[in-house]
Amino acid sequence: MHAIGIDIGGTKVAGALVNEAGGILRLERRPTPAGDPAAIVDVVVDLVTELGAGEQVVAAGVAAAGFIDAAQSVVYYAPNINWRSEPFRERLSERLPGLDITIDNDANAAGWAEYRFGAGQGTRDMTMLTIGTGVGGAIVSGGRLFRGGFGAAGEIGHLRVVPGGHPCGCGQKGCIEQYGSGRALLRFANEIADAGGIGQSLARARAEADGTLDGTIVSRLIQDDDPGAIAALRELGDWLGQACASIGAVLDPQMFVFGGGVAVAGDLLLDPIRESFLNHLPARGFHPEPVFTTAQLVNDAGVVGAADLARIHATSPAMTDSAPSDPPLTTPA
Amino acid sequence: MHAIGIDIGGTKVAGALVNEAGGILRLERRPTPAGDPAAIVDVVVDLVTELGAGEQVVAAGVAAAGFIDAAQSVVYYAPNINWRSEPFRERLSERLPGLDITIDNDANAAGWAEYRFGAGQGTRDMTMLTIGTGVGGAIVSGGRLFRGGFGAAGEIGHLRVVPGGHPCGCGQKGCIEQYGSGRALLRFANEIADAGGIGQSLARARAEADGTLDGTIVSRLIQDDDPGAIAALRELGDWLGQACASIGAVLDPQMFVFGGGVAVAGDLLLDPIRESFLNHLPARGFHPEPVFTTAQLVNDAGVVGAADLARIHATSPAMTDSAPSDPPLTTPA
Repeated sequence: MHAIGIDIGGTKVAGALVNEAGGILRLERRPTPAGDPAAIVDVVVDLVTELGAGEQVVAAGVAAAGFIDAAQSVVYYAPNINWRSEPFRERLSERLPGLDITIDNDANAAGWAEYRFGAGQGTRDMTMLTIGTGVGGAIVSGGRLFRGGFGAAGEIGHLRVVPGGHPCGCGQKGCIEQYGSGRALLRFANEIADAGGIGQSLARARAEADGTLDGTIVSRLIQDDDPGAIAALRELGDWLGQACASIGAVLDPQMFVFGGGVAVAGDLLLDPIRESFLNHLPARGFHPEPVFTTAQLVNDAGVVGAADLARIHATSPAMTDSAPSDPPLTTPA
Repeated sequence: MHAIGIDIGGTKVAGALVNEAGGILRLERRPTPAGDPAAIVDVVVDLVTELGAGEQVVAAGVAAAGFIDAAQSVVYYAPNINWRSEPFRERLSERLPGLDITIDNDANAAGWAEYRFGAGQGTRDMTMLTIGTGVGGAIVSGGRLFRGGFGAAGEIGHLRVVPGGHPCGCGQKGCIEQYGSGRALLRFANEIADAGGIGQSLARARAEADGTLDGTIVSRLIQDDDPGAIAALRELGDWLGQACASIGAVLDPQMFVFGGGVAVAGDLLLDPIRESFLNHLPARGFHPEPVFTTAQLVNDAGVVGAADLARIHATSPAMTDSAPSDPPLTTPA
């Protein structure tokens, strides 16, 4: 039976009808009515209704950036769409009676899709880092999605790598998101452009773009083997490798998967990550080393993962770490 | 039915006959024949034989510091006893035919005991930090011990908190073990003693002890409310809280449990940890906060946890993350 996956991004909402093998049968997109929870409920209900018309659908899963509770029900906080403690599943269930609905963090959905149908097939313990504007994370362990006690596990972008480092949108300083994201890559590229030398092509491209480097420009220069752009990417990889060494000490995954826009650089990104990881690995050489690879389901991972997690929730909940009956031990201050 | 737990420490091997409720029925201790794997096998075989005499024993679990493979069988590396790639389970099974035997990391065994019979009862997701000479860790998630892909998950002591920081025994620099362990507490205490002012009592105690502060002296001064010793403990707690903020971003546990010798300081340690955690928490206030507490099974956690993990391996393996059939994806360089 099919399931529906919905991925609520900052600018668009994607929806797909997905079969049991992770194949997409139908795909739809709508603009995100950001900041308007009621309108977002409308868009999701419309997409689910349209995608499921005339089909046997077992469940629908919705993915969004933010903290989702361990029961996959309440959105504690979603920065892109300005939600706090939104009982999203309840809202959707009222409008879509009879359908099993779950909410998931978008990086978790993408990571789960990679584990089930992409780069992580055949592993049991995989950690995914999504390198986009920010840094997202997902942890699969023992073949299950790792949600943590309150549902917000895998926020790997907020692992601190530099005490008192660059300010982060989370209110702290020195998070890996400020050293390993697409935004950090642009900062490194600008610094290299400012320094002259190997940064001359970056500086020229920046001047031609009215003073602002963007991801498209830096990606093009990386593909052209420009030494300045490659140096910026190597700096990014160096920081990500350092973070992976700490993550490895805690999680010890068999495989690190890198997704998101920056990961299309492939080995140009993976090589410096792996090198830095080994240089920073505690007790190097005393146990097996993980595999480093890139994601395979680049654009569709969110909808595929959300659909699959919803299907599993409806049919074999023990496969995920969902905790429907766990109340939080304390509430936010 | 009973199970036997063995805990191989740097100086002594403890063994216990443990019932299903985690109760110790018999307890024995022997000196550790460090550096002599064959003699350690002899000691473990003797203890298991003695403790099980005349009893129905379902399984025996052995805990040791070091990296144990995900199949709970091979000791990749055990620093205290100078082992590398030791097929420890096989050695023991040859001598103890018919008994289900498992090997576990000692911090994992202690953490599991706290989860099942101590501070962590009633949680599903718990992280334990053992603050002894070093910093050990254990992760319980979804009610299962989290072992990771190669069996070495939970090496929380080697989470890096300071790039280029204090050298660590693991070959890296800046690991939390160098800022949050008993050894770090002594370093802080010595620095405060050197600085004069509130460090005068520490300096005096150090001089009386022929120039060397040890844990007993610092603990006594902490209990006497000495401002210098309390300041050293607060510095330790501040670092541990910073590490917990990063661990929380990745693991999001419901509860942090602190064990080991330093944790007997109780709230004097927990208060600065909690304060520092909140100050360094990404997106503070947007989701529930974990509980901070101290371990309850102080000295016996290793043997109780090892016995319980062995019992579970023998009777309901799905409860732990053991992976008997998973080969490593790559081998050490």
